[in-house]
Amino acid sequence: MRFVTRLETAWSTNDSLVCIGLDPEPARFPAPLRDRPLAIFEFNKAIIDATYDLVAAYKPQFAHYAAEGAEDQLERTIAYIRERAPRVLVILDSKRGDIGSTAERYAREAFDRYGADAVTINPYLGFDSVQPFLERTDRGVIVLCRTSNPGARDFQDLQVDGRRLYQVVADKVAADWNRQGNCMLVVGATYPDELGDIRARVGDLPLLVPGVGAQGGDVAQAVSRGRTANGTGLLISSSRAVLYASGGPDFAAAARTAAADLHSSINRQR
Amino acid sequence: MRFVTRLETAWSTNDSLVCIGLDPEPARFPAPLRDRPLAIFEFNKAIIDATYDLVAAYKPQFAHYAAEGAEDQLERTIAYIRERAPRVLVILDSKRGDIGSTAERYAREAFDRYGADAVTINPYLGFDSVQPFLERTDRGVIVLCRTSNPGARDFQDLQVDGRRLYQVVADKVAADWNRQGNCMLVVGATYPDELGDIRARVGDLPLLVPGVGAQGGDVAQAVSRGRTANGTGLLISSSRAVLYASGGPDFAAAARTAAADLHSSINRQR
Repeated sequence: MRFVTRLETAWSTNDSLVCIGLDPEPARFPAPLRDRPLAIFEFNKAIIDATYDLVAAYKPQFAHYAAEGAEDQLERTIAYIRERAPRVLVILDSKRGDIGSTAERYAREAFDRYGADAVTINPYLGFDSVQPFLERTDRGVIVLCRTSNPGARDFQDLQVDGRRLYQVVADKVAADWNRQGNCMLVVGATYPDELGDIRARVGDLPLLVPGVGAQGGDVAQAVSRGRTANGTGLLISSSRAVLYASGGPDFAAAARTAAADLHSSINRQR
Repeated sequence: MRFVTRLETAWSTNDSLVCIGLDPEPARFPAPLRDRPLAIFEFNKAIIDATYDLVAAYKPQFAHYAAEGAEDQLERTIAYIRERAPRVLVILDSKRGDIGSTAERYAREAFDRYGADAVTINPYLGFDSVQPFLERTDRGVIVLCRTSNPGARDFQDLQVDGRRLYQVVADKVAADWNRQGNCMLVVGATYPDELGDIRARVGDLPLLVPGVGAQGGDVAQAVSRGRTANGTGLLISSSRAVLYASGGPDFAAAARTAAADLHSSINRQR
């Protein structure tokens, strides 16, 4: 099945554009959970059980597993999402970027080892660093464009012959890299003007929008500036504001409330 | 100990600017080794035993371990380098780049979990994505500048107000990010003009130069254009041309010959 079809299915399954970032931080888990051998997986499982009927996607953030030596728990988490919510997408947020021969290995890691539906990619190394991912037309390739962080300004906003660098990236992806229809762009909700600008440049190309919640991006602005004509075109991702809505034993229920609020806030604006 | 001191020690230990990239590809291992449970570690161990007195650094390429689910063998490999050659540097080539709060996790992964001396970093997300690494002043932060691959031209060569993007990155690292003296730049040997240009811009800032060997970069050009006045300033990295100099049971001896040839070729030009 082509990636775009899987994405449309994911949007419609729960009438949702919500993506929950699975960024486990054991120090923020409730005390009895924190010390268990599979604490990360058990935390994620509780979050998934509490939210799987509200979301279009889950986005495990690779660094949070790598720093803990918990690749096995990342594998278990993805397998659990498959079992619990087979129509919900799994995005491996690992921001890969390397020369072509190495990129082939990263594509195998994301799509075969972890079985992710999509992976985030850094464009700095250019086309051959992305090609091995693009060739997997049933999987999504989500290219960093205008990120949500303060440092995004350092290089992404530089003026390049009348365009900003992030605009050059957006145009390149829309015109060249998306020939199989399996690309998306990362555009931070923290910069709504740039989000609207990118939507105007790239037609219906879908956008992954982090930065709502803990990073302070405005949901209503993100939806109104980023949606396509049919009220989709976006995955709006929140991590910490959902995962750590409560630090107590009610964390899963609190996560559901936060995810349901995000779902409603988004759908009011679509 | 400051990173620059560790780098100078590494250069002088074996009078060498050689870096060997540890990019294990089990399909290219000799047949009896290929099927062993710790094949990757055993292959690396044989390469290290055969070359540790010729090199300044080893550079394990993360994707080759991640694609195989072999993080444990990466840990063992690094521990073995520590034991066999404590003055030789370990560079984790994982090209990390993410927002500040996530970059902290990647710094823990590279420097605490794996105990690497240095890590490669993608600059596209700007300062806050690099800061958690820079704060570890005993460790090296090796920023992608002008990479060795064909796609390097796509974005890195764009004209930005009279400079190319890779020049903007080089200048930013030299002027701002290197205040603790723990930065390096990645500059591919496949583009000798750009290598010379970068050396002229950044003073004595050390460069990691991949792209000799299988990628076709010329060693003599890399040394003559990239060295500093005292004949150092470089780590010149070869992976496949050393690791797979022979695909037979003599692979380790063949790797030693290839590494010794590279060591001599470099030192003739210093």
